Amino acid sequence: MDSVRTQVVALTVAYDGTPFAGFARQPGLETVQGRLESALGIVLRRGVETVGAGRTDAGVHALGQVVSLGLAEEVDLERLRRSLDALTGDSISVIEARLARAGFSARFDATSREYRYRIATARTAPLFIGAVAWHQPKTLEIDTMRAAARALIGEHDFRSFCVAESAEGQRTVRRVDDIELTEGEAFGEPYLEVRVVGNAFLHSMVRVIVGTLVEVGRGRREPQWVADVLEARERSAAGPTAPAHGLTLHEVRYPPDVWE
Amino acid sequence: MDSVRTQVVALTVAYDGTPFAGFARQPGLETVQGRLESALGIVLRRGVETVGAGRTDAGVHALGQVVSLGLAEEVDLERLRRSLDALTGDSISVIEARLARAGFSARFDATSREYRYRIATARTAPLFIGAVAWHQPKTLEIDTMRAAARALIGEHDFRSFCVAESAEGQRTVRRVDDIELTEGEAFGEPYLEVRVVGNAFLHSMVRVIVGTLVEVGRGRREPQWVADVLEARERSAAGPTAPAHGLTLHEVRYPPDVWE
Repeated sequence: MDSVRTQVVALTVAYDGTPFAGFARQPGLETVQGRLESALGIVLRRGVETVGAGRTDAGVHALGQVVSLGLAEEVDLERLRRSLDALTGDSISVIEARLARAGFSARFDATSREYRYRIATARTAPLFIGAVAWHQPKTLEIDTMRAAARALIGEHDFRSFCVAESAEGQRTVRRVDDIELTEGEAFGEPYLEVRVVGNAFLHSMVRVIVGTLVEVGRGRREPQWVADVLEARERSAAGPTAPAHGLTLHEVRYPPDVWE
Repeated sequence: MDSVRTQVVALTVAYDGTPFAGFARQPGLETVQGRLESALGIVLRRGVETVGAGRTDAGVHALGQVVSLGLAEEVDLERLRRSLDALTGDSISVIEARLARAGFSARFDATSREYRYRIATARTAPLFIGAVAWHQPKTLEIDTMRAAARALIGEHDFRSFCVAESAEGQRTVRRVDDIELTEGEAFGEPYLEVRVVGNAFLHSMVRVIVGTLVEVGRGRREPQWVADVLEARERSAAGPTAPAHGLTLHEVRYPPDVWE
């Protein structure tokens, strides 16, 4: 169908973000992208550049990160997946490798991204879920947090909800499709999960949203305050940035026609 | 009701077993009981001996271990709990402290114990549940495992299902009330949970049961084989011992009249 000879491969990648200085390649630092590109270099015996759907920060995890790369050669996808999974070490799993249409970019073709932030809610510190959940021993009013989150749904300027320096001179309008708060339990330990779905996210945006909602949940602010924060277009108006280890890039969605 | 002046306190304790050489106090080794008794020594300014409901092995976790101790002095239970929780470090949580009737023993008054063993079942190694689940990348036939487990329900001589040396000269009859296999998922990673409830357990008994059921689940043995293993009364007849890190002492049950 397409005359371009280069194939595009999309990898679905999960990782425990704990040991990494984030997703994006940085000289001299352990990063997920760096580790993937080294593994690709070993398998393909040449340098390969990849594109990730979400540039997750240091310590942030992923279950469904998507990474694209162009390949001139024919490859057995399952063999490629297995080699990369083995070569990237214990903290990265290469879950799937599939063919995408020519010109596909994991970043620019994504139509939405889902992040999940987990808060461990037991009185005592978590023993089994502490690596993937932020501990908040004080009671959280979840319905109040839900009411507060409503102000954020839709297309807004989220300048208040991102790292100030990263917003300078940048377009900070994003579309948030859904924020859902669900209570769960893993290995006997209770947690609150905040799912945020949107077209794209600013730097630390989900973590500032969570930090802001927690202010409301703890009763330090009224739910209406969140609309004021949005209005302020100023990072200092929002709540603190929730720590990285509670956050997971859960899924990235694409139009169905990108797959070969 | 009782003329004995000593109060008995029962602590509900959870721990991540990873850093410990097991529950039971051992000179020169990091153990859960050792850590608890040191903390009690600091709070009460004297030596205190405790009794645990289950002597979990090195690396085995607990959510609902119960530990009893006698106290001559009056104590504020919630203050005691909080002090012990703080003094025992990150890997131990003291969840509850309650009064039991005089003469109560966490070990001898227990009517049943529930252990849960988790097996991570995804093709790729677990990233988020690996500390509490044994990875089995090969497909497990769960219904076949369920059928095989039925032979173990009831009162039997479980000599085949325990560490051989620990069985010498010991009574090895135990009662297993229930074995339930349930599929679950945590943080996007699938697992199979084997819940085993019984009056008491021999050394490594749950782990040998799980190792044996996995042999059946992987199709290496027929389900009927489990009855033969039981019949053999010989450790070498059974499957391998599943690793410690998949096992959690989930709950210990007592008659309602033990609580003050």
